[in-house]
Amino acid sequence: MSTHRFAVNVTPKPGILDPQGRAVEGSLGHLGIEGVSAVRVGRRVELTVEATDEVAARAVAERLAAELLANPLIEAYAIESIAGASSTVAAGGPTR
Amino acid sequence: MSTHRFAVNVTPKPGILDPQGRAVEGSLGHLGIEGVSAVRVGRRVELTVEATDEVAARAVAERLAAELLANPLIEAYAIESIAGASSTVAAGGPTR
Repeated sequence: MSTHRFAVNVTPKPGILDPQGRAVEGSLGHLGIEGVSAVRVGRRVELTVEATDEVAARAVAERLAAELLANPLIEAYAIESIAGASSTVAAGGPTR
Repeated sequence: MSTHRFAVNVTPKPGILDPQGRAVEGSLGHLGIEGVSAVRVGRRVELTVEATDEVAARAVAERLAAELLANPLIEAYAIESIAGASSTVAAGGPTR
């Protein structure tokens, strides 16, 4: 058995209304921020899966995303393998 | 001026309670999914920034993340450069 950490990124599908994204855009003026557009707000779920290998672990994450984390009618999801314990612990953030 | 697309990943800091993560973990049994732990639920905000270059664009995304998208007391964020128009703003153009 091995342990793998994934992030499931869930975003509203193109064409689906995104009121949170509109709210962010509406706040930009108050902050004096210019040049930002096409804001889409989704969810990011990070989780650890223990399975026989990475392929099996990813299949579990995939099933969880499809059946619980995303609403397939209005949301798209992507599964990302993340290093170590979690990206949330990484000070300063990844440098990609 | 050039256009850059970023994702801001906002996650609860280690040690901060995450009721949504607990709710996901509580649902795993109903789905018959095993081996999943340490679920943390955050937000993923994708946005386009128009600026003179990528460094300036990233600085705008950074400011937006720090001042609007994340609560620095309880949340960490990481900024990720994502390719092209973005998964969420694919074919068909903006949908507002």
